[in-house]
Amino acid sequence: MKRTGTTHGVMKPGPATALLDEHEVPAHAVDLAAWLEQLPQSSAIEYLVALPLAQRADTFGYLPLHVQVEIARNMSRDELAQIITEMDADDRADLFNSLTAAEQQRLMRSLAQEEREDILRLSAHAEGTVGAIMTTDYATLSATMNAQDAIAALRRSAPEKETIYRSYVLDAQRRLMGSVRLHELILAADTTLVEDIMDSTPISVSVNADQEEAARMIAHYNFLAVPVVDSEARMVGIVTHDDAADAMQAETTEDFQKISTVLPFKQSLREVGIGVLYSRRVIWLSLLIFGNLFSGAGIAYFEETIVAYVSLVFFLPLLIDSSGNAGSQSATLMVRALATGDVQLKHWRDLILRELLIAAALGATMALLVLPIGVLRGGPSIALVVGLTMFFLVIVGSLVGMSLPFLLSRLRLDPAMASGPLVTSISDAVGVLVYFSIATLVLRM
Amino acid sequence: MKRTGTTHGVMKPGPATALLDEHEVPAHAVDLAAWLEQLPQSSAIEYLVALPLAQRADTFGYLPLHVQVEIARNMSRDELAQIITEMDADDRADLFNSLTAAEQQRLMRSLAQEEREDILRLSAHAEGTVGAIMTTDYATLSATMNAQDAIAALRRSAPEKETIYRSYVLDAQRRLMGSVRLHELILAADTTLVEDIMDSTPISVSVNADQEEAARMIAHYNFLAVPVVDSEARMVGIVTHDDAADAMQAETTEDFQKISTVLPFKQSLREVGIGVLYSRRVIWLSLLIFGNLFSGAGIAYFEETIVAYVSLVFFLPLLIDSSGNAGSQSATLMVRALATGDVQLKHWRDLILRELLIAAALGATMALLVLPIGVLRGGPSIALVVGLTMFFLVIVGSLVGMSLPFLLSRLRLDPAMASGPLVTSISDAVGVLVYFSIATLVLRM
Repeated sequence: MKRTGTTHGVMKPGPATALLDEHEVPAHAVDLAAWLEQLPQSSAIEYLVALPLAQRADTFGYLPLHVQVEIARNMSRDELAQIITEMDADDRADLFNSLTAAEQQRLMRSLAQEEREDILRLSAHAEGTVGAIMTTDYATLSATMNAQDAIAALRRSAPEKETIYRSYVLDAQRRLMGSVRLHELILAADTTLVEDIMDSTPISVSVNADQEEAARMIAHYNFLAVPVVDSEARMVGIVTHDDAADAMQAETTEDFQKISTVLPFKQSLREVGIGVLYSRRVIWLSLLIFGNLFSGAGIAYFEETIVAYVSLVFFLPLLIDSSGNAGSQSATLMVRALATGDVQLKHWRDLILRELLIAAALGATMALLVLPIGVLRGGPSIALVVGLTMFFLVIVGSLVGMSLPFLLSRLRLDPAMASGPLVTSISDAVGVLVYFSIATLVLRM
Repeated sequence: MKRTGTTHGVMKPGPATALLDEHEVPAHAVDLAAWLEQLPQSSAIEYLVALPLAQRADTFGYLPLHVQVEIARNMSRDELAQIITEMDADDRADLFNSLTAAEQQRLMRSLAQEEREDILRLSAHAEGTVGAIMTTDYATLSATMNAQDAIAALRRSAPEKETIYRSYVLDAQRRLMGSVRLHELILAADTTLVEDIMDSTPISVSVNADQEEAARMIAHYNFLAVPVVDSEARMVGIVTHDDAADAMQAETTEDFQKISTVLPFKQSLREVGIGVLYSRRVIWLSLLIFGNLFSGAGIAYFEETIVAYVSLVFFLPLLIDSSGNAGSQSATLMVRALATGDVQLKHWRDLILRELLIAAALGATMALLVLPIGVLRGGPSIALVVGLTMFFLVIVGSLVGMSLPFLLSRLRLDPAMASGPLVTSISDAVGVLVYFSIATLVLRM
């Protein structure tokens, strides 16, 4: 998290003001960072160094990571150390992880021990875990303090903390006993003890848990932050609501990528390289070729029927696409519902029956729509074949699309792999077999 | 927003405790609501009424809206009025909007004037606008108060406010002059004036703006809440980060629905009725039938070629699917990037060239993969036809998929309508034409 103080802070008077005032410079660190990003690097560094230190570190923290790294490489070691010392612990660890080993060593030498230890602690966590997005800058209070002393203590420590709106109460082993809101401290009488107003059933998340778990917890309870504990229930950090929201947004983007058969990439679509995007897209496109060969094999098997009734080919794209489309609908709805927690594995039984009813209704509707076209193009027998096939294929497609995300989830794979194209390939192959089997049966009779 | 106090609050001692202690009852209002939801309604009401009033209103507010309505209908008018008075202003307005006109009238008669006016003001805003998710329970301070008096004022008003972590400073016309964080008030000397520490470049959102705009602003600046102003710049409410996150989540779910050709529905996938889901799915499935007729017409046009070279049909699903898959990839990536703001309309020119390069690389790869299959199944000429077609179709599919979301956005339609199935239908029709044209050309030569 960026401390809300300076993200919403006005430009403080200082040596930079005169320099910056000549241009139309945004007042908020977020906007200022976006503005600096568009300047040539040497000017960006010049502006940055001219800012008061607190604002400098904040603005720097809002730059995209690859820009931070470039700037870090072109700054003097002392200037960099100053900024790094002032940065939020989690942003600092992210930057550190993006440097080369040699750069990391050089940087470490210019930092004080506290920052060194903090960086090493935070940068050790695996990507995707709660540890990788938590921060260690949280406020703690002792259970036996009174409200007045607690507020005084927060006043002293506030500038270094990400938030003082909730403070955590730890025992001698740093185990989480409870938490107390600034709100409550302000409302309480001066002599009230922290332990008497603290919430003593604190909800926490494990440092090794998935980031999504922290995000879901924050969304579920409307928290500003959730405390993070290690395997021995000792408090090691907090995840703030904004960092959790960022993690959730990235996760959702990944789901969008997966359901369109693109392997996940982290960069912005505007900035990702051609090579990276090619490699992320080509894998599934190629794999699906082999999936489609099954459809081709089905067609080869029924070549005689096709030559005898070539008008059947007219309806082929229509039938297999409809089945694939119905399947994509079911799959995407299910992928999203599993991701938001709206639906869980155990709901499969309840949902399959409903899906069957809906699919039957959809299949009947589509069959009715396609019947007149069948009569027009091929006569009553062809129409019968096409109508029957449509009815069955929409049901098959829907059931495949609905079940695949559950199956993947059951196998501990990501349900989002149940992409529209994968469902389409499967229902295409089934579709060809069903279509020409029905045709052979009906037309040869 | 639900006030964080009671969402994270412990069970307060009261008449309910004894009753509730006999069962394993969750301590948090969120969890308590989920637990009550599973009970028969009469027991749920019994438990609810036994809770202390503040917790009762909070827990009630966390129930899904349709459950709230049912319970409201089966409660005595006085009990209901008590809960309604204590509820958050935004939740109260939502409930009010879900009642029948007669129920609304009856309810209004049992409420005090303040709540009546509040309900009427909030329930007037159109769905999807900032006004519909804002709350009027925000804290205000006067610019000329000192820090000590300001904290005392917040202490008095805190129980009625959604958040006191940021207070808003208004002029005599209720225009927003600035805002000040509780954090800053605590750190300031007692005699410091609010106007000297307030942030006087406040960022606000219009009451008529799209909910997404408030959500993006909160995410962009890491705000806890964003102030809402009317057309005359008067402050009328705040949108809190959790309500914005809920709105954003709903919006994203809608995007997932649209890219899979399901018309948006608001209910949970687990709770939505069969009829609703059928009607939301059948429209696009039926429309796409007519799209697929173009493919069929193409096939009919080339019937002679097909009869002469029936092995061409073997490759038909493979070729048109590959084109559709590449197009779905591009379309989904673009829909998501437009939704997150990563990509904007003006970037179309930059991106189309890159897309062309990537699509050419993908097309070449896919053509190479399919060539040996072509040789095996149909000999060198067929292989040439299939390879060439694959190369062109992957490019066509990608360009259609990439451009369609931009085009829709340019026409002020939702880019998420550029669903995989729509892109697939378009590239299928193009695919059939390209395939058999190339075949006729190469094979008849």
